[in-house]
Amino acid sequence: MKIYDVGNPAPNPRRVRIFLAEKGIAVPYEPISLMKGEHKAPEFKEKNSLGQVPVLELDDGTHISESISICRYFEALHPEPALFGATPVEIAQIDMWIRRIEFIVMGPVGNVWRHADARTSKIVKQFRDFGEANRETAFNAMRWLDRELVGRDFIAGQHYSVADISALCTIDFAKFIGLEIPADCPNLKAWHARVSARESAAA
Amino acid sequence: MKIYDVGNPAPNPRRVRIFLAEKGIAVPYEPISLMKGEHKAPEFKEKNSLGQVPVLELDDGTHISESISICRYFEALHPEPALFGATPVEIAQIDMWIRRIEFIVMGPVGNVWRHADARTSKIVKQFRDFGEANRETAFNAMRWLDRELVGRDFIAGQHYSVADISALCTIDFAKFIGLEIPADCPNLKAWHARVSARESAAA
Repeated sequence: MKIYDVGNPAPNPRRVRIFLAEKGIAVPYEPISLMKGEHKAPEFKEKNSLGQVPVLELDDGTHISESISICRYFEALHPEPALFGATPVEIAQIDMWIRRIEFIVMGPVGNVWRHADARTSKIVKQFRDFGEANRETAFNAMRWLDRELVGRDFIAGQHYSVADISALCTIDFAKFIGLEIPADCPNLKAWHARVSARESAAA
Repeated sequence: MKIYDVGNPAPNPRRVRIFLAEKGIAVPYEPISLMKGEHKAPEFKEKNSLGQVPVLELDDGTHISESISICRYFEALHPEPALFGATPVEIAQIDMWIRRIEFIVMGPVGNVWRHADARTSKIVKQFRDFGEANRETAFNAMRWLDRELVGRDFIAGQHYSVADISALCTIDFAKFIGLEIPADCPNLKAWHARVSARESAAA
């Protein structure tokens, strides 16, 4: 078993690394060079036709891509500690928060990266006006998340979960592209300090 | 218990209706009028601060939004038939396909709807060039899905799953906004006929 990875600051592979650190599971990582275009090579596309990382390769040759799906595989094998929730309501609420973080926060952050960042301008066709408009959408998403965090320590409630992992990778990637948490978001900042202090955040 | 719903052709509430039909679970639906803006009213935003449907309301007042998360709640309560997979590999692969359908197919379809459709032009600020460019992205996503379907009957393998429900709602919504499956996608068309023939597709 191994995981194809590209290292920081890419948010998707980092989610898996933090998740495995929280679970105490060691899996070997095989680095893929985006600079050399290894993720778009035919031999890698046989592992994931979309040419994206991370990809988990099982010993029987099965491949699983999508960061959260790889985490679900390990959660099913090693249920404790339950990072996707233990009861039907917890399971649903953590899943809801994974999706909200991705659609509401990571969505506009990704649009800024793809369409308004100089570093991607040579790789993809950019729609700059659209990308620039997403800066404010991303900040407003952080303000919405700040309001949601009133009265609770973690994204999906009083317990640390995959939703926190997803949000941490999103917020740190946002900072990497110049979208820092706005000053008027004290709850989001406190949450960020709280989850960043965990040992797993170094993964 | 009840589900706030807006009816067809919205893809998100339909996923839940098809899922419950496949499970044989009856839950009362309460219609929300988008035309009257009921989803943006303060009393609805207390149920889902994002003002989106569907929302599941439990008898204790707990609210769960996000279509797939609502489905996960019912899967945890009623595991059979297993529509999110039964083994760790199945669970991971079905989740991977749910995500691929959303990010790779629904992503560009949603961008066309939001940014290039006359019906949304009065509701949101549109970036028309961006929206128009997403038509080809959506068609190419369908062609990619067509290639992935070679040799199997359903989206995530040989068994019907939530990934098929998500893909059916996506493909039918794409058609609603003028993005029909391209002629060069025989596998996707055969899959679409296969899942549309199920009784649940009428939900």
